Amino acid sequence: MAQKPSIPNGTRDFLPQDVARRTYIFDTIRSVFKSYGFVPIETPSFELSSTLLGKYGDEGDKLIFQILRSGNYLSKIETSDVTDTLTHTQNDFDKLSSEDRKRLGSITNRISEKALRYDLTVPFARFVVQHQNELSFPFKRYQIQPVWRADRPQRSRYQEFYQCDADVVGSDSLLYEVDFVQIFDQVLTKLNIPAFTILINNRKILSGIAEVSGEADKLIDITVAIDKLDKVGEEGVVKELREKGVSETAIATISPLFTLKGTNEERLAIMRTFLATSEIGLKGIEELEFVLEQTEILGIERANVEFDVTLARGLNYYTGAIFEVKAHDSGIGSICGGGRYDDLTGVFGLKNVSGVGISFGADRIYDVLTNFNLFPEDTNANLTLLFANFGDEDATYCMKLSKQLRAIGVDCDVYPSNAKMQKQFKYADNRNAQYVALIGENERNSGQLQLKNMTTGEQQALTEAELMTFFQQH
Amino acid sequence: MAQKPSIPNGTRDFLPQDVARRTYIFDTIRSVFKSYGFVPIETPSFELSSTLLGKYGDEGDKLIFQILRSGNYLSKIETSDVTDTLTHTQNDFDKLSSEDRKRLGSITNRISEKALRYDLTVPFARFVVQHQNELSFPFKRYQIQPVWRADRPQRSRYQEFYQCDADVVGSDSLLYEVDFVQIFDQVLTKLNIPAFTILINNRKILSGIAEVSGEADKLIDITVAIDKLDKVGEEGVVKELREKGVSETAIATISPLFTLKGTNEERLAIMRTFLATSEIGLKGIEELEFVLEQTEILGIERANVEFDVTLARGLNYYTGAIFEVKAHDSGIGSICGGGRYDDLTGVFGLKNVSGVGISFGADRIYDVLTNFNLFPEDTNANLTLLFANFGDEDATYCMKLSKQLRAIGVDCDVYPSNAKMQKQFKYADNRNAQYVALIGENERNSGQLQLKNMTTGEQQALTEAELMTFFQQH
Repeated sequence: MAQKPSIPNGTRDFLPQDVARRTYIFDTIRSVFKSYGFVPIETPSFELSSTLLGKYGDEGDKLIFQILRSGNYLSKIETSDVTDTLTHTQNDFDKLSSEDRKRLGSITNRISEKALRYDLTVPFARFVVQHQNELSFPFKRYQIQPVWRADRPQRSRYQEFYQCDADVVGSDSLLYEVDFVQIFDQVLTKLNIPAFTILINNRKILSGIAEVSGEADKLIDITVAIDKLDKVGEEGVVKELREKGVSETAIATISPLFTLKGTNEERLAIMRTFLATSEIGLKGIEELEFVLEQTEILGIERANVEFDVTLARGLNYYTGAIFEVKAHDSGIGSICGGGRYDDLTGVFGLKNVSGVGISFGADRIYDVLTNFNLFPEDTNANLTLLFANFGDEDATYCMKLSKQLRAIGVDCDVYPSNAKMQKQFKYADNRNAQYVALIGENERNSGQLQLKNMTTGEQQALTEAELMTFFQQH
Repeated sequence: MAQKPSIPNGTRDFLPQDVARRTYIFDTIRSVFKSYGFVPIETPSFELSSTLLGKYGDEGDKLIFQILRSGNYLSKIETSDVTDTLTHTQNDFDKLSSEDRKRLGSITNRISEKALRYDLTVPFARFVVQHQNELSFPFKRYQIQPVWRADRPQRSRYQEFYQCDADVVGSDSLLYEVDFVQIFDQVLTKLNIPAFTILINNRKILSGIAEVSGEADKLIDITVAIDKLDKVGEEGVVKELREKGVSETAIATISPLFTLKGTNEERLAIMRTFLATSEIGLKGIEELEFVLEQTEILGIERANVEFDVTLARGLNYYTGAIFEVKAHDSGIGSICGGGRYDDLTGVFGLKNVSGVGISFGADRIYDVLTNFNLFPEDTNANLTLLFANFGDEDATYCMKLSKQLRAIGVDCDVYPSNAKMQKQFKYADNRNAQYVALIGENERNSGQLQLKNMTTGEQQALTEAELMTFFQQH
């Protein structure tokens, strides 16, 4: 019996129109990256497991797809390992004890040595260290490739999706942060997204807040809590702060920041006062102020640029600027993110290399463009011209003509058999053909070829030369 | 201790210049596919194992990368399964008995349910059946995506590599075969490969040969043997035919075909006589003759098109035309292949759909272009203009200017700090920057900006407006 065809949950087939629309997004992002002097790299889809594991925390490790060794993958396993493990692991992974997880992990390490990349950042760090002698620093790379995560599939969450990243490593210059604000603005303006906000913060400001509130050692707890303001509201944040043991005095000190209002200048002024006693906090203010001032000087197309003191985005990663972009009224969360990190390559042996980078969420941008109906007309996959087929000799004539038209850039096709005209026109319709050429024996003899405009229905007679000229000007 | 960074054997990192060169190849192929009315699709990197397994023969199955289920993948395994299997499988896979392979396979099926695609053809067949109601037939698709094979890594053989396929399904028209000859010729001519041969044959001719020699039931053995003529020579083929039990009479009948000489017309004439008693053989001659005649009418840029009666390319697959392309004097085997197949989608439940398709081997084409030094100059990843940085105020000025230049399509960059000029120029060199702009306080005040051509070493003074004009015309 034939298999009923399907694909794994959380993956997608892309039909021609989907590909055209996604290509439009990727090309737009790529062209802006390139104009800022970023160059492309690509890394393998799978890395050694040791490159990836342990870099994303326990939750991340669980979501990494591991690849089974080929051949007899059991040859490195002893009977006792397995029986020992199996008696312990007849359960949901989440219910396993940490010791059982270790047993399972030890078996995994022996039956698998490669894993699909989880993001583009860790492979990039590995790449920079491995090829450091072939690169010139500051190294500005962009990378547009798929990543894989064993997340439970749900709406807008896929197991395979593209990331579009640009990073600079080997410089702590704030000018690159200024550039990234411009890049967000230019890409999203080019994509015609009507209104969007670039949120910006600085990890040093968050450190300053923890310091000023007398809870410097609870920096991570505080920022993780504050980061949820959007989702859980002020009360939720205060609740979490209490749970984490942050003192009531500290909470009282921090709380006013949740509702910081006013222009960026006004917010900066408030924060400068708030952080007056924190050296690192003031440094953060200074950096952020520089980026905002330069952005003001350079100008912005469409973005609203907003200092958001509650923005943290996975704090243990970023060390300076933090970015996030949201499209207004789209019902979709953040569509871009990024920030500065100071020791990304350290784990692979190259210390003290500062970097800053951003990422565009292509799938979410796709959803925004779909919701607002913003894809340009020419992403409707189509054919410029279909030659109807009236028989072998006519087809040969049309094949010659289509070869000449392709040479001047016209996408065209000859219907493959002399089927009924109705069928051929239906095919032209289905393929969104803009024109159909009707060339039978009469037309060849008279030299008057018939060209039908499929949008207007108009039909005109043209000589071969006129047809060429028509499409040259098209 | 830091990990020493590396990647799995058989995989590659692509540096910026590699990506530029590969993109050049992909774009060239894509533009020709598109001009012939092919539209792009993409399928997920991993498919359900059941979609892939059993489609490529036992050897193929062994080379499919399977993905370990996430979470507690052992939960579907009983202790007895494993102990039973383990006592049997402490060996090389190739030394396992077929029963042990089955045991291992049964475990694999429970700890893995997905696998990385092995080629683009089977996923395409699955796609066509799954989306048949959304497609219009004949459906012409192209697909340029990576595939993965657990082959033992060696020179020019990778575990991850791209395939560039174009197929038409839903028509048996020979016009598409004519098109594919044109497509081979146009892509490889555009890529500037100096000389190449498109070999063409027809499976029906091979069937006719087996029939005429009285060994119709040994068709596969005969064609598999003949297909090796290139590698093992005439004697080798005869030896293999004997081993397969092909009669001496049949061998005597077939042997003269190994050294078929002359023009395509002469070869066709010889074969028409040879196959005079075989209906299917003559049908093959007729089809092939049509394709060659139409090709003659349409004209060819650079290709040598040659009827090769020994060409088989994995016979159990093709049913009509068979194609293979070789670059002359390149020391590299075939760079493209393809042919007609009649029931690709049958296994997924859609019967009697004829198709024809071709594939470009991007990695081998890359090697040919490298060997002949044929990559265009502009695939040397570079930057058009680097602004030197003399300090904050100068940098701000340069950032503004670079924003204007990017708007007119100039890729440019501002050096991120006011480092020593020597260092900045070295960076410009490393990045292959074509120009460096030198703008300090004096230049800003006088309005005479200095622009240095990095190829010629010439330096000229330009106003801001002149600089814009200079690059507009660039």
